[in-house]
Amino acid sequence: MPHPLPEVPQQVRIALGDRSYDIQVGTGLVGRAPTWDDLPSATSALIVTNTTVGPLYTARLREGLGTRYRKVHEVVLPDGEEHKDWQTLNLIFDALLAHGCDRKTVLFALGGGVVGDMAGFAAASYMRGVPFVQVPTTLLAQVDSSVGGKTAINHPLGKNMIGAFYQPARVVCDLDTLTTLPARELSAGLAEVIKYGPIADMGFLAWIEDNIDALLRRDPAALAHAVKRSCEIKADVVGQDEREAGLRAILNFGHTFGHAIEAGLGFGKWLHGEAVGCGMVMGLQLSRRLGLVDDSFVQRVTALIERAGLPIVGPDLGADRYLELMRVDKKAEAGEIRFVVIEQPGRAGVRGAPDALVRQVLADCTH
Amino acid sequence: MPHPLPEVPQQVRIALGDRSYDIQVGTGLVGRAPTWDDLPSATSALIVTNTTVGPLYTARLREGLGTRYRKVHEVVLPDGEEHKDWQTLNLIFDALLAHGCDRKTVLFALGGGVVGDMAGFAAASYMRGVPFVQVPTTLLAQVDSSVGGKTAINHPLGKNMIGAFYQPARVVCDLDTLTTLPARELSAGLAEVIKYGPIADMGFLAWIEDNIDALLRRDPAALAHAVKRSCEIKADVVGQDEREAGLRAILNFGHTFGHAIEAGLGFGKWLHGEAVGCGMVMGLQLSRRLGLVDDSFVQRVTALIERAGLPIVGPDLGADRYLELMRVDKKAEAGEIRFVVIEQPGRAGVRGAPDALVRQVLADCTH
Repeated sequence: MPHPLPEVPQQVRIALGDRSYDIQVGTGLVGRAPTWDDLPSATSALIVTNTTVGPLYTARLREGLGTRYRKVHEVVLPDGEEHKDWQTLNLIFDALLAHGCDRKTVLFALGGGVVGDMAGFAAASYMRGVPFVQVPTTLLAQVDSSVGGKTAINHPLGKNMIGAFYQPARVVCDLDTLTTLPARELSAGLAEVIKYGPIADMGFLAWIEDNIDALLRRDPAALAHAVKRSCEIKADVVGQDEREAGLRAILNFGHTFGHAIEAGLGFGKWLHGEAVGCGMVMGLQLSRRLGLVDDSFVQRVTALIERAGLPIVGPDLGADRYLELMRVDKKAEAGEIRFVVIEQPGRAGVRGAPDALVRQVLADCTH
Repeated sequence: MPHPLPEVPQQVRIALGDRSYDIQVGTGLVGRAPTWDDLPSATSALIVTNTTVGPLYTARLREGLGTRYRKVHEVVLPDGEEHKDWQTLNLIFDALLAHGCDRKTVLFALGGGVVGDMAGFAAASYMRGVPFVQVPTTLLAQVDSSVGGKTAINHPLGKNMIGAFYQPARVVCDLDTLTTLPARELSAGLAEVIKYGPIADMGFLAWIEDNIDALLRRDPAALAHAVKRSCEIKADVVGQDEREAGLRAILNFGHTFGHAIEAGLGFGKWLHGEAVGCGMVMGLQLSRRLGLVDDSFVQRVTALIERAGLPIVGPDLGADRYLELMRVDKKAEAGEIRFVVIEQPGRAGVRGAPDALVRQVLADCTH
């Protein structure tokens, strides 16, 4: 059952020494001045948004920022994963330089994961680093991509291949922005919410099962709990392994298969969360074939993924193509694919797997 | 008088906690296996070099690396500051991905400052960070750009505007590689060597005055001392201020004026060190006009800059253009230009200065 919606924004602390920051979760945050208190001081700010989100929320953000910065500039990127490339990134650098922005200028990433990834990488690289704030407006970005400091753009030969670990100064998850989210994107975000169950918290998985209908009808109290608990789990993992030396890789459950789906179909055909949802089904089947979990567990999580409105059958790219695409995954080492698997319900690990086993999984899960 | 050339390579430690590394200075280093001991292990390496340096030293580096990596790939960039852009950087990413390089792959930057800056930024960004080794083959890169972790590419609107602070795993300064350096580039490197005198060490300035002829005829013992002492001073400054929050800015003495010269003429027309040499003369004159140092000091350092074969008169871009170009310098804040000045011989600081005073300096120092 959803908890009642708290009156004040909830805070989740990401503990990373002098790079620590807070995630705020609540309603009515973007347009409210206190949300933006105590950010690094600067004379100018740049709002990075896209053609879809900009018209909906830029005015509200400007209202919230008030007179905090002498100048608030804006750059509006084309919308879509297919634009997560150098050409679009360069629009941000062009804007920063055309406006004479200095090394204290604060960037605000107002949009989904693509905007956050690009604004974050631009902030990491502009004059070798300026502060930035994540204002994620999709569920997926709120529960996953805006938290943890991973920023990147795609390369024609691979997704997220060029980027930086760079922490934001703050993350503001305003649940109001989810009211305009298309249903397909809401489901895509739920994929990452569901993910936290099998890898870290079976109690949370049960809560999601009980509240999936409330989440799908965008009940604010249900969304608040889902976002907060997801961020807490991610914060805990990232705090232990900021640069993905080990543990952090478990957050990529479903992502190795998922990236292959995205790359194989061409980025943007499936939403990232859709590919991850289907990728988790493949990861669950692989875990089962490795003898780690039983079929009833696989069926239970698969059913929840399906109830969330996500695909549970992958595109038939051919096993060879899947394997080829997965070998260029960032987790791969010397050509060996590293899979995130469920070691037991609520705990994940990273392993290699025989190609033959992976082929069986792909045969089960694609058509 | 040059000290005798030491038998074993000299080491300078850059102390930056878990990002600490050694600079090796000596002769015969590149082709010798022990030079490369104890680097991060990986199955593959990528040598990043250019069309000038590659044919001279790649074979020697491959010999030195021996069988340390299963595969040693190579990417040869076009030579010149005008290629320090995204298109050229992308050649490195293309090579890394085409060869299936993973997140442990070690990059070797074999060349001058441009190669080092680009290979370093590529290493910082490829899969959000892989190890890299600097093998600087110009005096300028050995005493300045390869040390301290600054990496970047240029943007049409400004030099080094896009980059990262990213520390190498090792820096190997093989003095043998300076034997093939054009005289003009040797002089350009001496500009950065001379710089360390007025900002930090008047004893070193006196040593350079005594040994400028030996340096110009590339006496290995003189070069060894100049490189080692320069690296020590830089290491000391960088160790106190890795991310250029304050002190580190003094290393940019001459650079604000110098960058304006480079940008105003078009990057590549003057060598970076030439622009810095002339920029130091301007910085000295500004320091004098601010009442910080006397004319005899200015004349003394200017004479040494001239003996090193460097320009001491800047191009006549017009004062307005100089000021405009300097306002987009990374050190500028809210449009106010921040100049590195000599507070007293052997000590530098950062200050603003009235436009009128800067115009007088430019009138003195350009034609």
